[in-house]
Amino acid sequence: MRISSLAVGDELLDGRAVDTHGPWLSERIVEHGCIHVEHRVLPDELDAIAGAIRGLAGDCDLLLVTGGLGPTSDDLTREALALACGTELVEDPGARRRLEERYSARGRVPGPGNLRQAMRPADAACLENQQGTAPGILASLGATRVVLLPGPPHEMQPMYREHVLPMLDGEPRESSSVQSFGIAESDAAERLGELADRDRIPLVCFKVSDSVVRADVHGPGAATVSEAIRECWHPFAFGGGEDTLASVTLELLRSRGATVVVAESCTGGLLGGGLTSVPGSSSVFLGGFLTYSNHLKHQLLGIPEEVIERHGAVSRDVALMMAMESARRLGATFGLSTTGIAGPDGGSEEKPCGTVWIGLCDASGTQPRMSARRFRFPGSRDQVRDRTMKAALQLLRLHLLGEEATLLWEQS
Amino acid sequence: MRISSLAVGDELLDGRAVDTHGPWLSERIVEHGCIHVEHRVLPDELDAIAGAIRGLAGDCDLLLVTGGLGPTSDDLTREALALACGTELVEDPGARRRLEERYSARGRVPGPGNLRQAMRPADAACLENQQGTAPGILASLGATRVVLLPGPPHEMQPMYREHVLPMLDGEPRESSSVQSFGIAESDAAERLGELADRDRIPLVCFKVSDSVVRADVHGPGAATVSEAIRECWHPFAFGGGEDTLASVTLELLRSRGATVVVAESCTGGLLGGGLTSVPGSSSVFLGGFLTYSNHLKHQLLGIPEEVIERHGAVSRDVALMMAMESARRLGATFGLSTTGIAGPDGGSEEKPCGTVWIGLCDASGTQPRMSARRFRFPGSRDQVRDRTMKAALQLLRLHLLGEEATLLWEQS
Repeated sequence: MRISSLAVGDELLDGRAVDTHGPWLSERIVEHGCIHVEHRVLPDELDAIAGAIRGLAGDCDLLLVTGGLGPTSDDLTREALALACGTELVEDPGARRRLEERYSARGRVPGPGNLRQAMRPADAACLENQQGTAPGILASLGATRVVLLPGPPHEMQPMYREHVLPMLDGEPRESSSVQSFGIAESDAAERLGELADRDRIPLVCFKVSDSVVRADVHGPGAATVSEAIRECWHPFAFGGGEDTLASVTLELLRSRGATVVVAESCTGGLLGGGLTSVPGSSSVFLGGFLTYSNHLKHQLLGIPEEVIERHGAVSRDVALMMAMESARRLGATFGLSTTGIAGPDGGSEEKPCGTVWIGLCDASGTQPRMSARRFRFPGSRDQVRDRTMKAALQLLRLHLLGEEATLLWEQS
Repeated sequence: MRISSLAVGDELLDGRAVDTHGPWLSERIVEHGCIHVEHRVLPDELDAIAGAIRGLAGDCDLLLVTGGLGPTSDDLTREALALACGTELVEDPGARRRLEERYSARGRVPGPGNLRQAMRPADAACLENQQGTAPGILASLGATRVVLLPGPPHEMQPMYREHVLPMLDGEPRESSSVQSFGIAESDAAERLGELADRDRIPLVCFKVSDSVVRADVHGPGAATVSEAIRECWHPFAFGGGEDTLASVTLELLRSRGATVVVAESCTGGLLGGGLTSVPGSSSVFLGGFLTYSNHLKHQLLGIPEEVIERHGAVSRDVALMMAMESARRLGATFGLSTTGIAGPDGGSEEKPCGTVWIGLCDASGTQPRMSARRFRFPGSRDQVRDRTMKAALQLLRLHLLGEEATLLWEQS
């Protein structure tokens, strides 16, 4: 089934708003096994909209038009559809009644602008909108069905699910996804090999977002291919779907009855912030220390000033002591520490911006075991800090699984 | 000057990638005083692209086409332009030479696919690409100029600035912006009054993103209107352009030689993470305590267990003590604390999800002064935590400025 879309609104072309309907519809259409033929964005102009409706309807089975159904004079999509169909607008009695009921429930009476929202082309039908005053419209133009939906996403998306989804004749596609961290994008792509071929079924959509490499698999056999990708990316693959590095690591800790604390310097709280983004993290994450200044590394964690002077705050010794002392002082199973130079200033030849030490203390045995790993993260201050947080979580996860691996950007 | 755009690429319609060119170009075109007439997204299909080029060129002065200039067989934009112009592709000697130089600098020889990148329609010209192998192309179709640009944003955007910008006959528009936090969107819009009229010059583009209400003002007199908006939104307006609540608050602290520490419960590190997102924050932000568990509130901050038992961890007393003890123990001018129920579980009738106390201790005088404010933040766990962080920064900022104001979502 071939589906095209048209987003209408001045604000989408003058910098006031970003069109989110196009990408949202692409995902929905593809996951249903249909083809997204074309997407257009147009301002609130009667002739332009009518022309686009006629043009697009010539090459698809279903045309979805969003926006321009509001009560004000620049909302013209309804009129444009009537123009494209060569018919008049008539009032829909059911839509008028629902509109009046909706207003009277709030003790108000609809004005003339609002009543325009009960108009539809003759031969067309209104589609009920549970979230707002503007009903959608379903019309036919030759063999093509045309559906008008309101522009606000919180109205459009439920109406898509209620009214459009039942019209699709594709099969809901099996879908599955895999996420990984610590593997280079090029390496991840190469490991996929022919799995990533564009014409292959199931289709593998490969994305990198905030340093997480992700494969979304759509089509018959998605779960199997997903499992194969997970093996290709082992041990860097940490989960699928909605998993995050924090959620899978917390789950591993929870299943062992273990707890974790942090001692953060260059991340300044992002690591704790990441761990506590997971609902229910309080049974595993106790808290920790933000020791951004060198003085607090000494005051709160007892790291001798001469160790900081001799090795610098960004050093193996300091990372190890931060991890160990946080776990020891707070009575946690694991301590995780970060110390580094996030930039853009503060770098040196020996320790350029992006140099980060991550420390891990495992106090689960009779004697605490400790390790520290050095990284050189590329990118902006925000990227260096985000990558530090994710690398720390990945190191803890791999440690919990007993996996050995050198992460991307790690230096031996 | 009327400008249309066309983004080409299968990946933009099958869920693999989101088209970012449309919104990016809208902003650039509008800030230059030109009109963005229409934007389209099409797959890598020869006839569809050629048809769209012909169609769009009929109604604009300049048509920008992105994507489909790569070396592989599904990159067809070059061929589509030749088809639309009714001409043949010929090799551009200069482009061929630059391509060969680029490859030989890396000790390689371009293959046949790569050499296709030196082809252009007869009568067209190549546009140099400093960031990649695919040159752009400039052609004419009737009175309309057509420019092809490569799809990767890091190639497209510099080429837009180098080659397209000089073609625009609009005047670079004066631009300015204002950001605010703690004011309801509807209130912010109402306070703008007729300043927000759609046909007004300068144009005010109003956006809400992550609870920050922002006005971007484009056109002659932007700075003056921006200043007027800042007054309308006083004291919630915190800055313009690239300012963040963290950056302006840190700057206020720095100008007074003051320091700040945090004691975080429900934000779990996000507040420290926000403060340290600003380069150079180490002269002002010392560090702090993550006291996520009740036990650590007692162990690290000395909050008596009976206070927590009597009032609950989410209470005025605990927020006040967290702020005071963090400032006192770490020797800072200001202590900022958060304790709340981020959800989705853990709420009660008395303290539903989204209930948060924020504490502030000002130790700048001879006696510390303290205050705590209660909020009921709507939204998801992530939103509650993000809003808590921003509200804490806004409260500190207003305190530093001596401004009194009740923030959105605050409860008396």
